[in-house]
Amino acid sequence: MSRVPSICVLAGGVGAARFVDGLVQVHDPSDISVIVNVGDDFEHLGLAISPDIDTMLYTLGGLVHPDQGWGRADESTNALTAASELGGEDWFLLGDKDIGLHLVRTAALRAGRKLSRVTADFATQLGIEAQLLPATDDELRTTVETPDGDFDFQTYFVRRQHRDQVTGVRYEGASSAEPAPRVLAAIRRAELLLVAPSNPFLSIAPILAVPEIGEAVRSTETPVVGVSPLIGGRAVKGPADRLLAGLAGETSPAAVAGRYVDFLTHLLIDDADRDALDSLAQLGVTGAATDILMRDRAARAHVAQAALELATTR
Amino acid sequence: MSRVPSICVLAGGVGAARFVDGLVQVHDPSDISVIVNVGDDFEHLGLAISPDIDTMLYTLGGLVHPDQGWGRADESTNALTAASELGGEDWFLLGDKDIGLHLVRTAALRAGRKLSRVTADFATQLGIEAQLLPATDDELRTTVETPDGDFDFQTYFVRRQHRDQVTGVRYEGASSAEPAPRVLAAIRRAELLLVAPSNPFLSIAPILAVPEIGEAVRSTETPVVGVSPLIGGRAVKGPADRLLAGLAGETSPAAVAGRYVDFLTHLLIDDADRDALDSLAQLGVTGAATDILMRDRAARAHVAQAALELATTR
Repeated sequence: MSRVPSICVLAGGVGAARFVDGLVQVHDPSDISVIVNVGDDFEHLGLAISPDIDTMLYTLGGLVHPDQGWGRADESTNALTAASELGGEDWFLLGDKDIGLHLVRTAALRAGRKLSRVTADFATQLGIEAQLLPATDDELRTTVETPDGDFDFQTYFVRRQHRDQVTGVRYEGASSAEPAPRVLAAIRRAELLLVAPSNPFLSIAPILAVPEIGEAVRSTETPVVGVSPLIGGRAVKGPADRLLAGLAGETSPAAVAGRYVDFLTHLLIDDADRDALDSLAQLGVTGAATDILMRDRAARAHVAQAALELATTR
Repeated sequence: MSRVPSICVLAGGVGAARFVDGLVQVHDPSDISVIVNVGDDFEHLGLAISPDIDTMLYTLGGLVHPDQGWGRADESTNALTAASELGGEDWFLLGDKDIGLHLVRTAALRAGRKLSRVTADFATQLGIEAQLLPATDDELRTTVETPDGDFDFQTYFVRRQHRDQVTGVRYEGASSAEPAPRVLAAIRRAELLLVAPSNPFLSIAPILAVPEIGEAVRSTETPVVGVSPLIGGRAVKGPADRLLAGLAGETSPAAVAGRYVDFLTHLLIDDADRDALDSLAQLGVTGAATDILMRDRAARAHVAQAALELATTR
């Protein structure tokens, strides 16, 4: 049994994967654990798909599509085209290589293996040294409430292209979900907890909605450093800004910090949002501003390094 | 409800698909029903795979790999390569487009649809006018007995490359299987029953092992015309010759006819096996010899035409 890493990251989505890719450049990867959101997981065409885990695997494994930020580079879509021609659903893009991963995972899960074990195996096979942990091995599904009804995450996000106004978010199954093995130890024994630049409602909240995870995060005595998903008050990718506006009343670093108010000690924000530092201070959160746009691998390392440095600031 | 076709074919494997592809050239396709073996069906990497149905779909749909005789032309294997790199099994070759079909079928079956319905939908989507009927919607699995133990069909055939000596064949589930919808009507109301050039033990016997199908075939009063899977006493593809030698004592058209003795009226054999005509006559089976190697589409039509003509011979 290896020691518990000293850094633990809560993560979900493309921004989080890029941030962790920065972190492994500036800190020993084997000393990092990453707790990944599974609220977006779903079954599609019979395949067990874990989008946030896969984005993390592909990014850290050096396989990700560089512009898209998810899926694999040099990907073909022959299976999906054939499926579509035979009446199969094609609104969720699945590349052929990506399907290969889903097939192995789906077969393993059906054979009774746990998602955490399958994820660890994949990470090993891809040469990833950081410890990747799904928040839970139990079923936890993010449901988005809109004026047109409730939708599972992928229907909202992909099929309806996150155009709906979001009036609420539920995390189905969370209240009875158990943390996956190693998750609680990773949080409790970390010397630094990081909250990746992710959507607070759709990526981080589903992790915290697992009762024992939420408790462990709220009761940690180590610094908890977040990285804002906003640049100039707007989400770099996805609907985080609209969700903040709709559900938290404003699109600002303070609104992000407000989602994490009972545990966040520090928040790294973009230079463009620098005038929010005062409102962060009023929330008791120590802020710092830098260029947080992760346009390339060097920029990812810069953001990760800035987050590590912020942790030592009072 | 359309009328019941006047020709009904019992079929399994590449030879059968090529024979039916000949038949649709010489007879109205919509007047042909094909009852397809499902004893080879299996689940692999979580996919519901029906090799004989797929070979029929791809052949009649004009999508088949022309040399191989199964799988699709212009196929890639990116998914399987990725799966293999992640620890997935890769002994059963699955092309990307082929996986697309399996995904749609697997999802449909999991959603409670019947294999017969899914097959009919696929046939429609591929522009196939012949009626393709799986023998049964129930689980029926061919198990091959060898000195090294019992193997499911694909393990014997693909994984172990049909090298084992076969000491027996069982059709698991057959005795309690019901014919799929339309199967009994297709047999009972046909004016001609054809037995495609298929492996008697591995392709045709599993169909007949469904009790009501076996009864219906044995009690039909129409001609039942078989096409031998042998040329010069050898199987064109696969292990039919070795199975005949091992289980029926000899590799000959008479041994083929012997497998169908309680219903076969005619058997079309290859010119190379012409000296077997006498022994067929002794079994009460009317034989005829021609060139039955289906090397191209025209040759397939020739074999089909010869079988139709043989049916009118006494």
